[in-house]
Amino acid sequence: VDGRSVEARQRASPSTSRPSAERLRLTYLLTCQAGEDPHAKARDIAHEQTVELPAACLSPEIAERIPGEVTALEASTESRWRAVLSYDVVTVGEDLPQLLNLLFGNISLKRGILLTEIEWPPSLLAYLQGPRFGIEGLRALCGRPEGRPLLCTAAKPLGLSATELAHRCSQFALAGLDIIKDDHGLANQATAPFAERVARCQEAVATANARTGGNSLYFPNLTAPAPELAERAELARAAGCRGALLSPLLVGLDSMRWVAATSGLAILAHPSLAGAFFHETHGIAPELLLGDLFRVAGSDGVIYPNVGGRFPFPESACIAINSRLRQRLGNVRPAFPVPGGGIDVAQLPYWIDRYGPDTMFLIGGSLYAQADLVQAAARFREAVERG
Amino acid sequence: VDGRSVEARQRASPSTSRPSAERLRLTYLLTCQAGEDPHAKARDIAHEQTVELPAACLSPEIAERIPGEVTALEASTESRWRAVLSYDVVTVGEDLPQLLNLLFGNISLKRGILLTEIEWPPSLLAYLQGPRFGIEGLRALCGRPEGRPLLCTAAKPLGLSATELAHRCSQFALAGLDIIKDDHGLANQATAPFAERVARCQEAVATANARTGGNSLYFPNLTAPAPELAERAELARAAGCRGALLSPLLVGLDSMRWVAATSGLAILAHPSLAGAFFHETHGIAPELLLGDLFRVAGSDGVIYPNVGGRFPFPESACIAINSRLRQRLGNVRPAFPVPGGGIDVAQLPYWIDRYGPDTMFLIGGSLYAQADLVQAAARFREAVERG
Repeated sequence: VDGRSVEARQRASPSTSRPSAERLRLTYLLTCQAGEDPHAKARDIAHEQTVELPAACLSPEIAERIPGEVTALEASTESRWRAVLSYDVVTVGEDLPQLLNLLFGNISLKRGILLTEIEWPPSLLAYLQGPRFGIEGLRALCGRPEGRPLLCTAAKPLGLSATELAHRCSQFALAGLDIIKDDHGLANQATAPFAERVARCQEAVATANARTGGNSLYFPNLTAPAPELAERAELARAAGCRGALLSPLLVGLDSMRWVAATSGLAILAHPSLAGAFFHETHGIAPELLLGDLFRVAGSDGVIYPNVGGRFPFPESACIAINSRLRQRLGNVRPAFPVPGGGIDVAQLPYWIDRYGPDTMFLIGGSLYAQADLVQAAARFREAVERG
Repeated sequence: VDGRSVEARQRASPSTSRPSAERLRLTYLLTCQAGEDPHAKARDIAHEQTVELPAACLSPEIAERIPGEVTALEASTESRWRAVLSYDVVTVGEDLPQLLNLLFGNISLKRGILLTEIEWPPSLLAYLQGPRFGIEGLRALCGRPEGRPLLCTAAKPLGLSATELAHRCSQFALAGLDIIKDDHGLANQATAPFAERVARCQEAVATANARTGGNSLYFPNLTAPAPELAERAELARAAGCRGALLSPLLVGLDSMRWVAATSGLAILAHPSLAGAFFHETHGIAPELLLGDLFRVAGSDGVIYPNVGGRFPFPESACIAINSRLRQRLGNVRPAFPVPGGGIDVAQLPYWIDRYGPDTMFLIGGSLYAQADLVQAAARFREAVERG
């Protein structure tokens, strides 16, 4: 971690207590009930998320500085309003859990509040850092600099032994897929304990690479109880893995940031639990949670459920996630969009055309449905190579 | 942590790979769209949450053991069905993030699925352990064994200096409140950095106790970036604090379990972000998330938004949370329900009568609205002592 003493760090992390010129600007779409005043609703958010007291209980200095300012409020549709709230960055400090709290903590318990946009202050981006590899770095790890989409699949199902999972990894590697990740439900179950699984799967992929001259990578699932996260990351590194899968909402978004910042592993983020936030009038917009937030918290690639697969996810959200992950955002590297959740190989040409080359396609079930896994995976690779 | 080597622990944590007699039973309320088959929806959950493959892709052994079994399915109302799914405990292992994943991970991204009940296998409860203090232990810490409700308030607002917050803590302690917690948005901001705040607030409360002969406790907010959580817990312990506030959904539920298991601090859990899960037809029922899950993950008290306060929370949910936190659950200690979020002192007699003595009342804003904080807090204490 960081070599300074606890107290030095606790003292040092906030840089100043003077009002900052930098502001954190948040846009919410407010849905008002009959008789609900959008101005009052916006002001209520500004107070609820910071001081948790009415203005009458605050000193003028705090009332001026802390609750945030409603800088814009405009009608979106008849009962919906777009509100922009601007906060002094001192309310967050260098603290991702506190950022989540400010964005949606208490107001999650209210109604009709959808976070749709974050305007990131440079100081917060500099602290969070984002992906350590990003699109370019992940391409380099895979030895695929040439600009075609990357190919990803999952070793599964839960219930197989480590040896059986390793055999599947080997088949995918023989077919030349770029990244073979654990299914996100593979944790440390007795059927294929983490240490044994990582050793066998990594070895199987290395052996297959040696045979083909290829460069497939195995990404184990690091999602783990809090005290074991760092150990599992070390174990994966020691086994030779270059990246890992993590479900940030299962372990805490900041735990992912920390693993990304310290492990040296590339991070593929899984959206497990994310759907809790995806309601039409209340929550966090999918492109903001899976696009912006997962990216700034260190994801080199973000898995999301593609439209038309097993999950009822709109195409507009997919397009918006792709765009958020790739767009310019200060010095934060772009990350790979990883559509999955039921893409069929037969549909790949359409999706490649639609999503472009800087995409990682995750195909699992549609390979397993075929008799010969090596051939199925090879057809996946060929479909992408044809473009 | 645990003195065994990483590999020994990774090997040891799952106890066996043979099918277990113990089952984890989950009840979901399914809301079906026109034409949607509730049987198919229940089976889909069983597969989506485990193997993520259709039955045709599974070996008979895995198909039999892993996807879980739909053991009951009955109509609840016209479009709603109650489904009970039963899983081999091997699918979870000793792993709270993987439990969350099994409960609601991928299906969060679907629609019309509400988790309403968990039947806990004894082995999982034995691993999770629950509160270290519980109702009895927290009463003992506060020196209030006699069976009246406990009194809790919050030092706020964000923006005050550590000295100013400590002054408020002192006033509450002079009035004899049992627990004075940080407001949950106080993290490590420059306005009142954690280390300085803890030192000053704890000292202020100790000084007030020495004057009154009382036993007020100061609980700092531990919610922090992942690598600083253990350090802040140590710092709080070293300062003499006996408990702390934590927002488990901001840091990850398992991080709270870990702090509860290792820090020696009593844990008051805050529901920040929890509302994302509280939708009528999709999510996790409030009494299950704040009652069962927060309790088994180590909360000695759980804060929730009381009906009629600032949050639109139904009374039925409050009653159900109270009941879940207190009811018999294997060897897991009961935890204090902590209704808050806008309770007025004037209404306390009603709520004491309604919720009973094993309740901790959290009153903040209604004290701050009064001119003299010591007198306001004393009226709060007297209202509870009168019962």
